[in-house]
Amino acid sequence: MVPDPATYPYARPALTVDCVLFGLDAEDLKVLLIRRKLPPFQDQWALPGGFVRVAETLDQAALRELREETGVEDVFLEQLYTFGEIDRDPRDRVVSVAYYALINLEDHPLEAGTDASQAGWFPLDPVPALAFDHRSIFTLALGRLQGKLRYEPIGFELLPAKFTLTQLQGLYEKVLGQPLDKRNFRKKILKMNVLVPLAEKQQNVRHRAAQLYRFDEARYQQLREKGFSFEL
Amino acid sequence: MVPDPATYPYARPALTVDCVLFGLDAEDLKVLLIRRKLPPFQDQWALPGGFVRVAETLDQAALRELREETGVEDVFLEQLYTFGEIDRDPRDRVVSVAYYALINLEDHPLEAGTDASQAGWFPLDPVPALAFDHRSIFTLALGRLQGKLRYEPIGFELLPAKFTLTQLQGLYEKVLGQPLDKRNFRKKILKMNVLVPLAEKQQNVRHRAAQLYRFDEARYQQLREKGFSFEL
Repeated sequence: MVPDPATYPYARPALTVDCVLFGLDAEDLKVLLIRRKLPPFQDQWALPGGFVRVAETLDQAALRELREETGVEDVFLEQLYTFGEIDRDPRDRVVSVAYYALINLEDHPLEAGTDASQAGWFPLDPVPALAFDHRSIFTLALGRLQGKLRYEPIGFELLPAKFTLTQLQGLYEKVLGQPLDKRNFRKKILKMNVLVPLAEKQQNVRHRAAQLYRFDEARYQQLREKGFSFEL
Repeated sequence: MVPDPATYPYARPALTVDCVLFGLDAEDLKVLLIRRKLPPFQDQWALPGGFVRVAETLDQAALRELREETGVEDVFLEQLYTFGEIDRDPRDRVVSVAYYALINLEDHPLEAGTDASQAGWFPLDPVPALAFDHRSIFTLALGRLQGKLRYEPIGFELLPAKFTLTQLQGLYEKVLGQPLDKRNFRKKILKMNVLVPLAEKQQNVRHRAAQLYRFDEARYQQLREKGFSFEL
């Protein structure tokens, strides 16, 4: 079922996907960009992405482009928004379905299967000039991520299975881009009752070993259904 | 800049928009459906929608289709999600950008400019069988609406400028599809501090006149930026 374009009764917008991949490491929240090899915007940085094939779903297209352009695999991408301004691509009318994800950089090294000179992780402040309307896509994705952090404990999947409150606070601070008051943060996060204190403490640390926690998924699902928020 | 489809180097999915319009009246939350005149799914009910033209934005396409098929205008549509399963349309590979909105039925009569036999407001329980994957689109839209009600006082635009707590509770109950405890609802909604009590009471009612309120938009914006929730 792949009809010849010559049989289309009307002109069609071209359809692409673009991926905003946020990566967290010990220092920073970063975004994955690729350098464009071809015009338009040749040699400029852009979000990984490309044309949707008629025989693949949108999700499949996004994962394929990400893999082909950056070597990154096994990512849980979430659809963000579809961008359809008339002149967003100088070549043609192109509508793009944007995706985003937050991953732990240590689990997803760039080196595997990609040309490192063509893909890189960039700190958010400042992100380099981006091709097309990719700055708008990036900005919307960052806002969504920050918004979600207030309603859902999205960060937990990024932390080790057992983590300290300091690690959790670091994650919130990196995503929100602002320092948080330690006492206030702890009070609020503990009040949510999504953390389970473990009987063990940190090992092999030079400072005083901190309490370890794990995330209570059942309680989180409950909260999600009821609606909850984390006011900062 | 409308190239001849015969010049497309690759096949393209067709692109459509579909609109889930929720309407609230004194009795019910309803959804706007149209009866399909042509195959596929001829004579079945479907969401209003149609093909995106290359010279219009997605938002423009959604508003145009809504106007052409139902006569409804002046609606603030919000993009919901883009549906791209391979076989969702038996004719061709068709990707659809879904929109949704919540309107006050009294402000948007269907009669203007449309054939009433081809468009109608349906109570949600049960919604008739729908063409394509429109049941999935509808279900996602309803979930989004219910979710938003927990985080944002979206309902306020639907009420008269001055409203009673009973009217506000009715709106929550209709969207959430469940009765709410009156005392509990009042306690929580007043605690949000988004309501401003007015110096006047209801006029011309047979029962004891109730306190009127208006919505405090500045306070709402503040809450929105901080993150808030309304736990039911």
